[in-house]
Amino acid sequence: MIETDILIIGAGPTGLFAVFEAGLLKLKCHLIDGLPQPGGQLTELYPKKPIFDIPGYPSVNAGELVDNLMEQIKQFQPGFTLNEVAEKIQKLDDGTFIVTTNKGTEHKAKAVAIAGGLGIFEPRKPLLKDIEFYEQDDRGVEYFVKDPEKFRDKKIVISGGGDSALDWTIFLSNVASEVTLVHRRNEFRGALDSVEKVQELKQQGKIKLITEAEVIGFNGSERITAVDIQVGTARQNVECDYFIPLFGLTPKLGPIANWGLEIEKNAIKVNNALDYQTNIEGIYAIGDVNTYPGKLKLILCGFHEATLMCQSVYNRINPGKKYVLKYTTVSGIDGFDGSRKEAEKAVVKAIE
Amino acid sequence: MIETDILIIGAGPTGLFAVFEAGLLKLKCHLIDGLPQPGGQLTELYPKKPIFDIPGYPSVNAGELVDNLMEQIKQFQPGFTLNEVAEKIQKLDDGTFIVTTNKGTEHKAKAVAIAGGLGIFEPRKPLLKDIEFYEQDDRGVEYFVKDPEKFRDKKIVISGGGDSALDWTIFLSNVASEVTLVHRRNEFRGALDSVEKVQELKQQGKIKLITEAEVIGFNGSERITAVDIQVGTARQNVECDYFIPLFGLTPKLGPIANWGLEIEKNAIKVNNALDYQTNIEGIYAIGDVNTYPGKLKLILCGFHEATLMCQSVYNRINPGKKYVLKYTTVSGIDGFDGSRKEAEKAVVKAIE
Ligand SMILES: Cc1cc2nc3c(=O)[nH]c(=O)nc-3n(C[C@H](O)[C@H](O)[C@H](O)COP(=O)(O)OP(=O)(O)OC[C@H]3O[C@@H](n4cnc5c(N)ncnc54)[C@H](O)[C@@H]3O)c2cc1C
Ligand SMILES: Cc1cc2nc3c(=O)[nH]c(=O)nc-3n(C[C@H](O)[C@H](O)[C@H](O)COP(=O)(O)OP(=O)(O)OC[C@H]3O[C@@H](n4cnc5c(N)ncnc54)[C@H](O)[C@@H]3O)c2cc1C
Repeated sequence: MIETDILIIGAGPTGLFAVFEAGLLKLKCHLIDGLPQPGGQLTELYPKKPIFDIPGYPSVNAGELVDNLMEQIKQFQPGFTLNEVAEKIQKLDDGTFIVTTNKGTEHKAKAVAIAGGLGIFEPRKPLLKDIEFYEQDDRGVEYFVKDPEKFRDKKIVISGGGDSALDWTIFLSNVASEVTLVHRRNEFRGALDSVEKVQELKQQGKIKLITEAEVIGFNGSERITAVDIQVGTARQNVECDYFIPLFGLTPKLGPIANWGLEIEKNAIKVNNALDYQTNIEGIYAIGDVNTYPGKLKLILCGFHEATLMCQSVYNRINPGKKYVLKYTTVSGIDGFDGSRKEAEKAVVKAIE
Repeated sequence: MIETDILIIGAGPTGLFAVFEAGLLKLKCHLIDGLPQPGGQLTELYPKKPIFDIPGYPSVNAGELVDNLMEQIKQFQPGFTLNEVAEKIQKLDDGTFIVTTNKGTEHKAKAVAIAGGLGIFEPRKPLLKDIEFYEQDDRGVEYFVKDPEKFRDKKIVISGGGDSALDWTIFLSNVASEVTLVHRRNEFRGALDSVEKVQELKQQGKIKLITEAEVIGFNGSERITAVDIQVGTARQNVECDYFIPLFGLTPKLGPIANWGLEIEKNAIKVNNALDYQTNIEGIYAIGDVNTYPGKLKLILCGFHEATLMCQSVYNRINPGKKYVLKYTTVSGIDGFDGSRKEAEKAVVKAIE
């Protein structure tokens, strides 16, 4: 059982920054995310794209912003349960919560902050016979590259024509023994340098490219041994260990929708006049996942919501204790790892 | 008469970022500030100190954050009325506002956003006979260095023992013909390098230093010609054109307190459940200047408040027009100066 002060569901920018604000109040955080890495939409959907409306950043790449947030919260040593979906919640009599993931990992916390964004990212799946069978128990169909090492020295077929398909083709060409990229059209849609890099890999014979083509079926009784590909009117059979269809992701609110929270327009209603708490005391919702009059699904709003939420949790955990706001500039920051950040002290010094 | 969409009172971080969010909605802004430069508390009180709780910045110097905000809003060409205090407000029948400064400058706007922070910075003044007389009409007493050129080739006496006194002594030693620094004690309190620099300037004979001393009176009938200084039991007379006492600043809410707004704990009450509007429709209050249940006087909260305020003004100015949120990453930004910022476009390209 993992124990913490605030359990944060969702490691997007909102959840990450909550760790920092909680840390200032000496509250420990643990994050759960269904994705293999932190950063939410920024890392999963547009890591290399610039954002222009982060205050104080005329421009910052989404991936870089996530790196900076990770650096900023490092001192407060957040725990992570990645690749797992928060599925069940239970409120105990003493007001604490137990949250269990789809893999059975249990987390106990004094408060829960749902920072689930648009929800769990679900892959768009090709409509292929028996695909559910091959999705399970490492039988060969994968929708995410959670751990690239899994594909070392394996034969891979990737399907898709966008950035993900291009980027993973490039990346896995250095890991797998064989990468075949299959796409319905001849044109790819992505960053220019990715398209050019794939072109180059093809010319060097480091990947195979099959275009105007589609994977239409699987071979193998226990697990995939090959896929059937329709190319125009012809058919081709390509041996492989893994088939990775990368047709984009759609977010779904997911299991959280059944936790007894008030839901409106696919989002969780919160008390924006105070602390972004939901209808269940002790459960908060911050960032894209919440809704209230005037709500804007922007990163900078999630930061503010996370900050006010942490204050409320502080009051919940320390009833009656008066909190006095301290400026980081003036008081510095004491990390849970013993580190300290502080402004250079003024000296008091005679001039002779 | 200066005309604009949103008149922002206060050019601190909150007011500055409001320009950006307004610009995204095609609304023009003009800012009034009593100080000679934008940046509010950050520039005036701690420009060289690091802030650790700006989201995405593990550390950023206050002055640098202001520079970045100025760069971020440049595209939206804000107007500035600096060195003037917003004193009077009038609401016209058509719902627009006229705001007049202490110097009589008039501004007309469709909405007013008060981002006045802790208020107007008032200098702590030495209790000296006739000081009010010399404060006026360039008679020699100045509490701010609004335009350093004013002091070119002049004789200056500065009083104080903190960062401002040290920094302006250093700066003006290159501008004025003579700088004398007077301080009650022998010890100065400030950044180490400032103290060391003043020590060096003194040793090089570039400034004069009189410590354990105090300015006690003025000479000159039309304007200052010299100041009298008490040094221990002795007296000294130092010729000068300007006397600049730098004993720190205290903020006062100022004239805004009399505009008919609901005030609580020296701050303006707003509707935090919606748009940070005050009790007078069309007047908003954002950043440190406002109060509501759970309010935190933090920079990052001002950013969020500014953003929601702009949406509300948009609805006020464009009644019935449905606003659709656009991501800056996806839509880019069109500046009022004709410039455009945008993410690199994806290409659609064949691989041969
Ligand atoms: C292409 C694009 C461009 C954008 N541009 C901008 C922009 O310029 N400016 C801007 O402010 N915003 C922009 N956005 C929006 C911005 O990305 C979101 O506002 C932001 O990501 C919200 O952060 P979050 O932390 O609330 O949620 P998310 O980033 O969505 O993160 C939520 C996380 O929660 C996880 N999760 C959800 N449910 C569960 C569960 N039950 N168990 C475990 N994990 C779960 C998800 O896997 C996800 O990682 C853009 C979005 C897109 C898609
Ligand atoms: C030493 C110190 C350290 C700090 N450290 C941190 C930190 O680490 N993190 C953090 O988030 N915050 C910190 N703060 C607080 C932070 O500076 C404020 O939250 C922030 O400045 C508020 O911004 P603002 O734009 O709302 O107001 P301000 O920065 O106060 O700006 C308001 C402006 O309005 C002007 N004004 C007011 N009334 C009028 C009028 N009638 N006419 C014309 N102009 C007017 C003033 O001259 C001023 O320039 C610190 C503050 C101090 C003093």
